[in-house]
Amino acid sequence: MSPKSVAIRRLSTSSPRPVMLAIAGDSAAGKTTLTRGLVDALGDKGVISVCVDDYHRYDRVERSELPFTPLSPACNYVGIMEQHLQLLAMGEPILKPVYNHTDGTLDRPVLVEPANNMIVEGLLPLHSRLSRACFDLSVYLDPPEEIRREWKVRRDSRERGYTEEQVLADLSRREADAVAFIRPQRRWADIVVRFAPIKERGEAEHSLPSATVLLRPTAPHPDLSRILGEDTREAIHLKLIRDDDGKPVDALHVHAYATRDMTRRVEDVIWASLGIDHQLPESLGAIGPGLRSEPLAVVQLILLYHLLLARKLQGLELEVIR
Amino acid sequence: MSPKSVAIRRLSTSSPRPVMLAIAGDSAAGKTTLTRGLVDALGDKGVISVCVDDYHRYDRVERSELPFTPLSPACNYVGIMEQHLQLLAMGEPILKPVYNHTDGTLDRPVLVEPANNMIVEGLLPLHSRLSRACFDLSVYLDPPEEIRREWKVRRDSRERGYTEEQVLADLSRREADAVAFIRPQRRWADIVVRFAPIKERGEAEHSLPSATVLLRPTAPHPDLSRILGEDTREAIHLKLIRDDDGKPVDALHVHAYATRDMTRRVEDVIWASLGIDHQLPESLGAIGPGLRSEPLAVVQLILLYHLLLARKLQGLELEVIR
Repeated sequence: MSPKSVAIRRLSTSSPRPVMLAIAGDSAAGKTTLTRGLVDALGDKGVISVCVDDYHRYDRVERSELPFTPLSPACNYVGIMEQHLQLLAMGEPILKPVYNHTDGTLDRPVLVEPANNMIVEGLLPLHSRLSRACFDLSVYLDPPEEIRREWKVRRDSRERGYTEEQVLADLSRREADAVAFIRPQRRWADIVVRFAPIKERGEAEHSLPSATVLLRPTAPHPDLSRILGEDTREAIHLKLIRDDDGKPVDALHVHAYATRDMTRRVEDVIWASLGIDHQLPESLGAIGPGLRSEPLAVVQLILLYHLLLARKLQGLELEVIR
Repeated sequence: MSPKSVAIRRLSTSSPRPVMLAIAGDSAAGKTTLTRGLVDALGDKGVISVCVDDYHRYDRVERSELPFTPLSPACNYVGIMEQHLQLLAMGEPILKPVYNHTDGTLDRPVLVEPANNMIVEGLLPLHSRLSRACFDLSVYLDPPEEIRREWKVRRDSRERGYTEEQVLADLSRREADAVAFIRPQRRWADIVVRFAPIKERGEAEHSLPSATVLLRPTAPHPDLSRILGEDTREAIHLKLIRDDDGKPVDALHVHAYATRDMTRRVEDVIWASLGIDHQLPESLGAIGPGLRSEPLAVVQLILLYHLLLARKLQGLELEVIR
């Protein structure tokens, strides 16, 4: 495997501002997996990911006596999160608070200096108008609830030392706040991603998920209509549909059984539209040691396209360095 | 005792920005004592004091293996301190880091929301141009070194659990950084305050100190020349002198033996020039339970004058509430 990194060489003399990407979604919706491939593709110097779930007002002990869950804005320094996102968007450093997920304490803050690309992931990055205004592109991860619950039980029991019963009880406790604060963020995203087996096609629940990607006309997406048709028998297809709210949207479907050759066509269009003559970075689509998902790779590729496009619109030359 | 607080009622409809006062000086120079009386006079709602010695990059253990002392800018997040001072000066809240002086650890940060008046005290508030630009008025505390050493030994051995030998060794270790970074701040202050026995007058070293207050023409000080003469036999007198750098400056001397009646004259001029018909807040001059220093009271009164004047210049009505 030859990992590739896409890096940026400055052409403009004025200092470029970082490109800001938001990835919002509930706990265990897949934010970290989606982020990881982008970070690997852009390299340590080209990108920094910031988790905005660190802006907790209270530690775990204090929270246990309070009436709200970590999903509630009242439980977080939302005003400071907005301020820090504004500072990062302007290219300024921040001293970011740190929440220790292992023992639930609030630790010493860390210095975050902006990189060319900033990926801001967490529960509430799209909650307020001021924070939304900081992003070049926003993504909402929208897995079906039963899938997300499964993912959360698996992760929290394996990695965070909880029992299945504890995780399920926590999910129930959080439901009201998820309805009130997390899911409303879906409407503010430029891209809504649903990783899930597509039942209509008889995909088993435990197989690798397919992706349904809503590309809203709020962002300058690559034009895929020239190469993708509406034929749902195709492993990758694009359909013009109405969103939940009745608004028109492009729905890109990438089925789990899509092959690398099939995704290559999408890749070629995207690289060509950026003027880049290169292969897809190998890190895209990785979901574990030796395990690869073409749907994930296509989603990450579209996000990478937007990051690179935003740099290009700032007059910066793009360069794939390895 | 009837404590008085001076509070501010807004007249202007546009949001007023906080008035920012810097009190810079080396460790144990008297910053806390000077600040305390002002905080008591203005009340919890009218003023917040912030210590900028919390912007440490390293905790005590990490620092023990590093070549610089806490006085060195390299040991501090100076850029973040500047950013936070700018935010406070604009009336924005900050999430301020916290250094725990008791055990030398970096703790969870705290929310600081700006009040009408912000007193920013510490080792390095006047170190950089960007931070100096945040202040309406700046003060440098300049006690003679032998007096400061005495104060530091007394405080650190009584309150911070060090032996006299440890404090003296620490002072030696810090001397080079004090010369390089602390004392140069003297030149940027609008007011330089020296609390010390005035030897020419035979004052004993351990008596309550007198004050020498350099009022530089960089700030709109109250005009005391009409009521104070140059006669050094007077308990309070004002002399036109040359500063260390040859520049002209008003030197106000307040001797330790000045009585309350003597300071009342200065007080009357200051209140009158602000259009306030009130007595000196009782909290000014307090140096301990039942212990009062007229020189300290006069210095605090001058600082209070500047805080109130800056509010007045913003078009806000001043109101003494209790």
